[in-house]
Amino acid sequence: MSHTPIDQQRAWCALAEHAAGMGRRHLRDLFDEQPSRYETFGRSAAGLTLDLSKQRWTDQTLELLLDLAREADVPEAIRGLLAGERVNRSEDRPALHTALRLPADARLEVEGQDLVASVHATLDRMEAMVERFHNGQWRGATGKPIRDVVNLGVGGSDLGPLMVTHALADYRPDVEQHIDVHFASTMDGSQLADYLARLNPETTLFVLSSKSFTTIDTLSNARTARDWLKARLLGGARQEGVDEALLMRQHFIGVSASPEKMSEWGIADDHQLEFWEWVGGRYSLWGAIGLPIALVVGMEHFRGLLAGAHEMDRHFREAELADNLPVLLALAGIWNVNFLDIRAHSILPYDGRLEYFAAYLEQLEMESNGKSVTHDGESVSYSTCPVLWGQLGPNAQHAFYQLLHQGTQAVECDFIAPKVRYDDVPDPATRDHLMGQHRLTLANCFAQSRALMLGDAAVADDEDGPRPGHRRYRGNQPSSTLLLDRLTPRTLGALVALYEHKVFVQATIWDINPFDQWGVELGKTMAGETQRILQHEAGLEGMDDSTRGLIEAVWAAEPRADA
Amino acid sequence: MSHTPIDQQRAWCALAEHAAGMGRRHLRDLFDEQPSRYETFGRSAAGLTLDLSKQRWTDQTLELLLDLAREADVPEAIRGLLAGERVNRSEDRPALHTALRLPADARLEVEGQDLVASVHATLDRMEAMVERFHNGQWRGATGKPIRDVVNLGVGGSDLGPLMVTHALADYRPDVEQHIDVHFASTMDGSQLADYLARLNPETTLFVLSSKSFTTIDTLSNARTARDWLKARLLGGARQEGVDEALLMRQHFIGVSASPEKMSEWGIADDHQLEFWEWVGGRYSLWGAIGLPIALVVGMEHFRGLLAGAHEMDRHFREAELADNLPVLLALAGIWNVNFLDIRAHSILPYDGRLEYFAAYLEQLEMESNGKSVTHDGESVSYSTCPVLWGQLGPNAQHAFYQLLHQGTQAVECDFIAPKVRYDDVPDPATRDHLMGQHRLTLANCFAQSRALMLGDAAVADDEDGPRPGHRRYRGNQPSSTLLLDRLTPRTLGALVALYEHKVFVQATIWDINPFDQWGVELGKTMAGETQRILQHEAGLEGMDDSTRGLIEAVWAAEPRADA
Repeated sequence: MSHTPIDQQRAWCALAEHAAGMGRRHLRDLFDEQPSRYETFGRSAAGLTLDLSKQRWTDQTLELLLDLAREADVPEAIRGLLAGERVNRSEDRPALHTALRLPADARLEVEGQDLVASVHATLDRMEAMVERFHNGQWRGATGKPIRDVVNLGVGGSDLGPLMVTHALADYRPDVEQHIDVHFASTMDGSQLADYLARLNPETTLFVLSSKSFTTIDTLSNARTARDWLKARLLGGARQEGVDEALLMRQHFIGVSASPEKMSEWGIADDHQLEFWEWVGGRYSLWGAIGLPIALVVGMEHFRGLLAGAHEMDRHFREAELADNLPVLLALAGIWNVNFLDIRAHSILPYDGRLEYFAAYLEQLEMESNGKSVTHDGESVSYSTCPVLWGQLGPNAQHAFYQLLHQGTQAVECDFIAPKVRYDDVPDPATRDHLMGQHRLTLANCFAQSRALMLGDAAVADDEDGPRPGHRRYRGNQPSSTLLLDRLTPRTLGALVALYEHKVFVQATIWDINPFDQWGVELGKTMAGETQRILQHEAGLEGMDDSTRGLIEAVWAAEPRADA
Repeated sequence: MSHTPIDQQRAWCALAEHAAGMGRRHLRDLFDEQPSRYETFGRSAAGLTLDLSKQRWTDQTLELLLDLAREADVPEAIRGLLAGERVNRSEDRPALHTALRLPADARLEVEGQDLVASVHATLDRMEAMVERFHNGQWRGATGKPIRDVVNLGVGGSDLGPLMVTHALADYRPDVEQHIDVHFASTMDGSQLADYLARLNPETTLFVLSSKSFTTIDTLSNARTARDWLKARLLGGARQEGVDEALLMRQHFIGVSASPEKMSEWGIADDHQLEFWEWVGGRYSLWGAIGLPIALVVGMEHFRGLLAGAHEMDRHFREAELADNLPVLLALAGIWNVNFLDIRAHSILPYDGRLEYFAAYLEQLEMESNGKSVTHDGESVSYSTCPVLWGQLGPNAQHAFYQLLHQGTQAVECDFIAPKVRYDDVPDPATRDHLMGQHRLTLANCFAQSRALMLGDAAVADDEDGPRPGHRRYRGNQPSSTLLLDRLTPRTLGALVALYEHKVFVQATIWDINPFDQWGVELGKTMAGETQRILQHEAGLEGMDDSTRGLIEAVWAAEPRADA
């Protein structure tokens, strides 16, 4: 029943042999030997330019990797994904985030049902809601227009909207009532408490975002928010006419795949936005989970984001493997992880607006591909997802680039930057000033990937005599550089879709399911048990010695009830 | 001249042999075999409790690691560090961050000079400044009290103050004029532009923080800030009497090791805070660089932070190796990196206030120990600093824990949480509610480290029949758990000092210098060159094909000057 593991198939073996032959060839030699690497390994699509010439590979490597992709049936997998087949096999359902960004005139029939109409119906409902906010017509229980929205969600219900609202902060539309959006995700109440201390309950609304509507982190925060609103808006002579039903209705919106649970919690029927079981949390910013994005940038820009992602979807479906950006980015990763034994990957945007992009990708990549079991349930004998982390590039230069340049471990890096920025600033003096800051940032971006590639060779001519050991740079760190024409809703949509599809291609080659996340289930079950013990509702028997010791340490420190 | 590399010495070889014998023994077996592991591998000091029982080791492992520490002269290194010897050999100077937290009645003579008096003189100057702010006596050029302070700094001048001000946000003192502190670090101006759009120039002051006072990221932002103040506060009938000298004087404070450069830039002499060449950027939050911290929490709490760090310093100096928290934490890391080949390390605080702690440690560890050359200039043949990254634990559960539980790569984790929280909230209902959220958070913390350790065995009894592959958990991921009695200025100081010293012990064993950062120099030089090319002030010759291609892509996208 189970087929030959990919690492025992022909293309993989050929790559392993090729990798052994490549040995430790240095990137600077590869550049010396092949003069037009930028043209050879550069591709553009959907407003993005991808330069893969600083990967430690040759034309032959890429040929072999493309063989591997064919052997792993990547083209067929792409077709199946976009056609709505049940690619999420462990949960027996399709993964249809791409359906969320189909244009209104498209058709996608999945198991006998056309999805496009219902997707656009949800978008239209979002649009109507967003308009009410932006016109100042969405009013709190005391009649004042809502001006602050707090998104309560975690994981996929937090990272996507948080990342995009920051990235597109320049795209606020000119509306009557601007909405400030805040994000509270942490189960210990820290972030929320901070907002509650600053915000006015009369003009604050909460969006409860949870696919299952059972996420305890989010529901804990939601309860705190509800108590806060009630304590401040109910009762007392000054708030006559405000009752609980009105408060619940005007201050909460729910976003979930479970309307029953939303109603149970008290979300008004027409303030519920539903999404589908076939959209995974970490792939969900394109629909109702994206409400906070639309509240910040308006629906027109939100639709621009979808259009950009759709453009990448079409490229993914239509482009030849050898010209296919997600496929090429995925293959570079496979080469690094599986053949060069590089186990870490750093994401380094050179644009402050992309502050949360690395955190977003940490989830997208590690939750999708941090797996070790094939579709057939066999343990893999090769590495899958590397550890992925990052930070704004210029800041990371002052933090962890030391390890990239002189550490003992190879790391793959993705450099990301917009080509043009600030040229639309009206005041000429300010414009020049800011465009200068952008050029400085680009210069750093290009210089760093070059220094990582070349090492000492980059400055050899400037020096007389060999430098002491602590001033030597090994170089040979591989990287990809991704330039956005500009950072706009469309290119951001394409950028995110690029990484989504890269993850899918890697999963296809690794023969794992990127759309489930069983790994998080065990801890959830065990947390409930541990909580009961901490609260003295269950005994310590059965616990290991470490857990017992830790719990007893907490008990010993707790203030005594009779004190 | 060069001595035998550590990996060829007796203790290291014994450990390598021992590691081979340990094979792939599973943590759950180690717990079965040795019943009182918590007591055996747990230690407390300075308000911190460290549980190392979930490391994949035995008593014998620890014995051998302690041998290694002795063979690497760790006790002598600790003495030398704290005595102010020139431990930063490549730059030929001591590393005296511990001197910054000596109590006023201590004495530390370094090369003939007592440092304590000058350290405390700076603290007293900080105190006088902070009091002027908190009394509302520090006024802007138009006479209004300053209420917003923007810290302009990057790397060590950003991450430490940012992390601590968030961690101690509950400790705001009761003063006449609260100061809101903001942090702008990114060279592209994104963050700063955001603050400038919101803040009032009349009541905003900038702290320019840069050890060398040549950091281009910070100086770019400082120039933008100065232009903003001038454009808004100078000229025009409404601002009579405001001249440039007054503006510069009342709206800028400088923190640097170079008074000349501060004066040159225009910082008034008595608004300069100086620090010392012998304090590295990433070890500098304890002195003048900590001004933003003191502005938020007040000097009393700032001194509490110093006292906690000093308590850890004393523990580090006085405790036996086998009871020494920094030494033990370092040895656990050495065991994982060098003998179990674990190349990634995740930092997972279970307290929202520690939101920036992982980012802080990323710099502290990777910039200090991301090195591959010994003190004698020889290349090491063993691994040094692992890739270190993290996120608030509860959030990471919804992001990348999937990879920790079911990925293909071993990762060491540090779980960090306070034992007690929220018990001082005045309102009983809110207190119960929040203490419940804290217990929930602790339950998740303990459950996750247990699930990572045990894997399937944690729930084996609940299941009938073997689970399918995608629901299996390998377990055997090692972790440390660090409990703070509470999160206070003192325990936070001790926590940071613990990691500083851990880094030092590891560097000692690896025979590398944790106090320099030559790795960041190459990129700086090359960025200047690249910027000149981007601006058409130098030619593309000499550039590699990739850099040429990227620069040309940017040029092609730039709006034409004559358009």
